[in-house]
Amino acid sequence: MIQPIIGNIDFIESLRGKKATFMLALSNTKTANIAGITQAGIPGMIHLTPTLDSEFVCTGEVRSLDNIAETPKGVPTPALITRGIHLLAPYGRVELLDLGLELKPKVKYFKIHDFNIEPSKSIAKGANINAQELFQKGVNFGQSYECKDEYIILAESVPSGTTTAMATAIGLKHKGKEYFSSSFKDVPNDIRENTLKLSLSHIGEKDDIFEVLSKVSDNMLIFNAGFILGLNNKIPLVLAGGTQMASVLLIVDRILKLMGGTMETSNLALCTTKWVAQDEQSDIKALLELLRFDINAYYADFDFSLSEHPALKLYDEGEAKEGVGAGGALMYGFLNGVSKEAITKEVENFLK
Amino acid sequence: MIQPIIGNIDFIESLRGKKATFMLALSNTKTANIAGITQAGIPGMIHLTPTLDSEFVCTGEVRSLDNIAETPKGVPTPALITRGIHLLAPYGRVELLDLGLELKPKVKYFKIHDFNIEPSKSIAKGANINAQELFQKGVNFGQSYECKDEYIILAESVPSGTTTAMATAIGLKHKGKEYFSSSFKDVPNDIRENTLKLSLSHIGEKDDIFEVLSKVSDNMLIFNAGFILGLNNKIPLVLAGGTQMASVLLIVDRILKLMGGTMETSNLALCTTKWVAQDEQSDIKALLELLRFDINAYYADFDFSLSEHPALKLYDEGEAKEGVGAGGALMYGFLNGVSKEAITKEVENFLK
Repeated sequence: MIQPIIGNIDFIESLRGKKATFMLALSNTKTANIAGITQAGIPGMIHLTPTLDSEFVCTGEVRSLDNIAETPKGVPTPALITRGIHLLAPYGRVELLDLGLELKPKVKYFKIHDFNIEPSKSIAKGANINAQELFQKGVNFGQSYECKDEYIILAESVPSGTTTAMATAIGLKHKGKEYFSSSFKDVPNDIRENTLKLSLSHIGEKDDIFEVLSKVSDNMLIFNAGFILGLNNKIPLVLAGGTQMASVLLIVDRILKLMGGTMETSNLALCTTKWVAQDEQSDIKALLELLRFDINAYYADFDFSLSEHPALKLYDEGEAKEGVGAGGALMYGFLNGVSKEAITKEVENFLK
Repeated sequence: MIQPIIGNIDFIESLRGKKATFMLALSNTKTANIAGITQAGIPGMIHLTPTLDSEFVCTGEVRSLDNIAETPKGVPTPALITRGIHLLAPYGRVELLDLGLELKPKVKYFKIHDFNIEPSKSIAKGANINAQELFQKGVNFGQSYECKDEYIILAESVPSGTTTAMATAIGLKHKGKEYFSSSFKDVPNDIRENTLKLSLSHIGEKDDIFEVLSKVSDNMLIFNAGFILGLNNKIPLVLAGGTQMASVLLIVDRILKLMGGTMETSNLALCTTKWVAQDEQSDIKALLELLRFDINAYYADFDFSLSEHPALKLYDEGEAKEGVGAGGALMYGFLNGVSKEAITKEVENFLK
């Protein structure tokens, strides 16, 4: 039910039966306001998506708007999957990382790590992030973080995050622009292409890594690169995401290169959905093969073939694909004895 | 679904819903090379059985050979049951004890406790074990072991282990040769009888316990006797096995007698399969009644009556019976809400 993309099954099998902290990194970038660049949310309300996603994962309710985030085509947020797994095989706890939200989630009792970070600007105009300070905040958090469960699943909700992920990788002079995914089935290449061009046009020849990141990236990517380095392999960490999490690793790769350093990555893995792993318009495997360190990567072999619900069938047709850690959540379900049938039913229940 | 053999149900009921560490003790004895003495494996490859069993329990894959261990009659290893439970109601973790393997399991990320122990020789020629040192290693391990779950299930995979278990009990002057089980339905009594005679012929009149054990026993039996004494009742321990685990207890019994000591055994139990508990050619209950300390013993009331698969029906006809902790695994499944139907399906899936 869990398939390797790179590496073998042992890392993830060694986590079978263990409890994880589900950590959800939330951020807004004004890039999402570019018309048509993302479908991760309700038009005009897209900035609310991470807030609503996190409310729903924590409580089963959305509070900052009347409805759960869904695309104009009616594809419901992958938060439904993440929440569904939490009902069937609960995470040890859910913690939120506020990495620059327009609106804080209306939840009590849940740990919200606050780092005093502002939403970032549109990469089309230069994102204007203090990248070095943000990265350092990630490192500090990783160094000081004490996990109360046996491992961490790190997920994200960042509208237009695949675009900033792509700009980040290209800005850092990685190959493979064509390897990047989008929440759209028919990726709006013109809009992305323009945004990307505008974004990269701000980079100066002599810009260092952090100067580049400050212009073309987003908070989630930069902070989590620091978090991984700060955590320093001390506890198993599963990056729950697709090309965005791959981009986090591409930042780590460039920083290690800069420092002439290496990093032990035996406790680090990425896990995504089948929709990303088998996406014909992106190539997560190729992205991960750009890294100069070893990493295990997996996908959860789940789809909605057991469902008749039209909104869920859209996932199997290539819409939405990933987000809110859906792939890592599915993995967690499988590692804790939950069946495809049970997950399908649970997600369908939310749509009744 | 769990039935007492000795004692009442309270001990095992008190473990309902709790996570266990599944600890798999692996060892080779050259006794297994005696033609026809065991069917626990592929002829000529029998020494690989514990290696393959442990690979399969950990990862769902066999790596040191193309196929999973099965008998010449096609009875698949009970590791299928142990792994099946892990998929349905995962153990907290799987840990391996290398108590003298010809070939180390090809698994990463799983804890393999290595004690620098060599495979033992055939008991027909004197097993040539440094029994006292081995026992001491077990004691030390028990004293220092810190369980990360709420209890331990201790299982074994030792081809020809029922023969060495029998020789051990007789060598230590316990009654009840006829109480011992075998992985065969039609126990090859001639071969066993000869091996037993040869084995016992090496014992001298003045041999002490450890001298006897060094000649007629196997590493698993001796080490685990030490482990139980070293653990000293500090955490619940379920011995997952049949007559072999009973033989471990018979060693403990003799050592306590020698020391004039007693042991608190309120946290110690044995759990086996229905196939062993109801075996007409052995008597686990009688074996346990030889002990001078109290112990709870159980069997998991599971059979393959819901399956049509011919290889699995052989279990119900008395082949294989136990091993790789199948009885304890089934108990764990029942204690964690798994049904007979679900287990049957899961095991059948492996054979597709």
